[in-house]
Amino acid sequence: MSVTAPEGFLADGVAVGLKSTGKPDVAVVVNQGPLKVGAAVFTSNRAKANPILWSTQVIQDGVVEAIVLNSGGANCFTGSFGFQTTHQTAEKAAELLGVSPGDVLVCSTGLIGTGDETFRAKVLEGTEQAIAGATSDGGEDAARAIMTTDTVPKTSTFRGDGWVIGAMAKGAGMLAPGLATMLVVITTDAVLTAEEADAHLRAATRVSFDRLDSDGCMSTNDQVTLMVSGASGVTPEPEAFAAALADVCLDLAGQLQADAEGASHDISIRVVGAASEDDAVEVGRSVARNNLFKAAIFGNDPNWGRVLAAIGTTEASFDPYAVDVSFNGVRLCSAGAPDRPREEVDLTPRATDVLIDLKAGAAAATILTNDLTHDYVHENSAYSS
Amino acid sequence: MSVTAPEGFLADGVAVGLKSTGKPDVAVVVNQGPLKVGAAVFTSNRAKANPILWSTQVIQDGVVEAIVLNSGGANCFTGSFGFQTTHQTAEKAAELLGVSPGDVLVCSTGLIGTGDETFRAKVLEGTEQAIAGATSDGGEDAARAIMTTDTVPKTSTFRGDGWVIGAMAKGAGMLAPGLATMLVVITTDAVLTAEEADAHLRAATRVSFDRLDSDGCMSTNDQVTLMVSGASGVTPEPEAFAAALADVCLDLAGQLQADAEGASHDISIRVVGAASEDDAVEVGRSVARNNLFKAAIFGNDPNWGRVLAAIGTTEASFDPYAVDVSFNGVRLCSAGAPDRPREEVDLTPRATDVLIDLKAGAAAATILTNDLTHDYVHENSAYSS
Repeated sequence: MSVTAPEGFLADGVAVGLKSTGKPDVAVVVNQGPLKVGAAVFTSNRAKANPILWSTQVIQDGVVEAIVLNSGGANCFTGSFGFQTTHQTAEKAAELLGVSPGDVLVCSTGLIGTGDETFRAKVLEGTEQAIAGATSDGGEDAARAIMTTDTVPKTSTFRGDGWVIGAMAKGAGMLAPGLATMLVVITTDAVLTAEEADAHLRAATRVSFDRLDSDGCMSTNDQVTLMVSGASGVTPEPEAFAAALADVCLDLAGQLQADAEGASHDISIRVVGAASEDDAVEVGRSVARNNLFKAAIFGNDPNWGRVLAAIGTTEASFDPYAVDVSFNGVRLCSAGAPDRPREEVDLTPRATDVLIDLKAGAAAATILTNDLTHDYVHENSAYSS
Repeated sequence: MSVTAPEGFLADGVAVGLKSTGKPDVAVVVNQGPLKVGAAVFTSNRAKANPILWSTQVIQDGVVEAIVLNSGGANCFTGSFGFQTTHQTAEKAAELLGVSPGDVLVCSTGLIGTGDETFRAKVLEGTEQAIAGATSDGGEDAARAIMTTDTVPKTSTFRGDGWVIGAMAKGAGMLAPGLATMLVVITTDAVLTAEEADAHLRAATRVSFDRLDSDGCMSTNDQVTLMVSGASGVTPEPEAFAAALADVCLDLAGQLQADAEGASHDISIRVVGAASEDDAVEVGRSVARNNLFKAAIFGNDPNWGRVLAAIGTTEASFDPYAVDVSFNGVRLCSAGAPDRPREEVDLTPRATDVLIDLKAGAAAATILTNDLTHDYVHENSAYSS
């Protein structure tokens, strides 16, 4: 069902040859209203791709008519020609839809530096084809067209009390080889103002996509977009909508983690007993980014020493000699000293739980990551291309 | 020649079974004076091993009689028993040498969590044997006894105008599998005060070891020690000594980089045109820690897009659309857009030069790192053990 599950949205995905495989590579999602509300969050990378530079301006007024997304090229660091390509993509879509170009978002994903004249011609052609073919059941096609090295399309749907949320996603942090980028489009027919949409989206991404850290590498093209048609005519309870949106985002984050290129373990790092949520996130992220820890998990080695060494590099409040660390329910380190034998831990399942108790407070957070594997190195070393 | 190249030092390395291979695993360096000056810098990891906790106290008064180093166990997160082991090691050495335990440094390297009664007994036995066997040409034996997965011992010597610096080192950041830790002992017969020794050591490590970042993982046991005997009777020109010490440290840093486990490229990231030296270091380190960049180099792929994406995550002053990036002398990205074809770059040699011009000022710095390889993953995933 994807992004066309809610009322008021048309979508399509088409193939125009941006991908050498011939698979679909341009998608559109069109909001038929009556509301044309949009909200978006972008990569915090200061090296921003042209679509990010464009979309950051479009989203300012909270009005979004449509979004055009392409795989097969990031259009990042492609000079002023590349920015004009993004601009022309929005103009093309706007012309065909009879709306303002300033209300059309653009997303791109693929190799940085790709964005020449051939790229431009294909993106414009794809925009035209996809808008011509957009239907109220085109969500699945759109979800396929934004895939890069994803092995499966990623979609999610939530049915509320008279309103629906639909969503599609691709990527996993910067883990996809040379192609990077997490792109997410979420749609809803609930009635929301631009301010409400923005607040809900920021709250949901903060506890979901922002806590998925496959390989510590931040993309130049990340964008998470919420489009609101209001077609249901129903104004949801704010708490109910917030919870549903967070559910959808967490569901997609889990799908991204599960499909992360080269990974053999999905690692959930739960940090409890932190003095603040920020501390918990910082500690979890530091462990998630530690290559020695990640390689150990690949080798089914519950190396708690590497966890403590990673925690030690943070500014979080804790006493290294008070910390407990458990792997898959077995406490291997208690108060900074060995506890149960590591032989008691079975790390052969893909799902891996690491529990860190900082003994410094009552706050908690969970960071999702993957292990560091031979396949990760292989797929990101260009040997595969 | 190692640490016994200067006058006034005895050293030895012995095997007591801490390593399963039976290779040497305990080393001592004894300062015969007349000066007994010492300075040291330690890991900034807040999770500090017992020898670090001990040595941090010993170094306070600037007096060091001897240093005992063991491989085969980090004695980190081994509880109060582990700290007592370090204390007893210093007491044993002090008793044999007729000095105060408070003037004996201790270093350990190996697996975190290793430090039981067997470990203690062997370290104490090794301390006794090594002190009994210490001679004025034992520097090479000491350098071998601190090796973990190092394939060659690492030593350096500088002969000044009437004075000498000798040194030994092991490790490469946390790159050695499960064993971690960079340990360095530098000796000199030059005449220096404790304050001078400390200032010289901090200045030299800041531009050498602090800029070697193999895998971004900070050890719990790192220690760089300078021991001053004054046996030459010569007080060096401060500038000459500073330059010589920096040379020795850079030489050792290069040896550590070249012997980094699993690496197939030695990458030198030179950042120029920075607004400040801190900015240059931050940018270089961010690139050095980017797994996608490191995997690309392994695949001989001069992926400048990943360099820009890594720079974009820093707080440094720069305009992403002004930056130039060159690989091995070929400028692939100019003003944030493609320049020369990447086919012109040959990345098959082990030595890899990345030049980043931020176009934001006149400051510069170089960070040394390695690529992310299959061997790195293999050796750090415990499959090798």
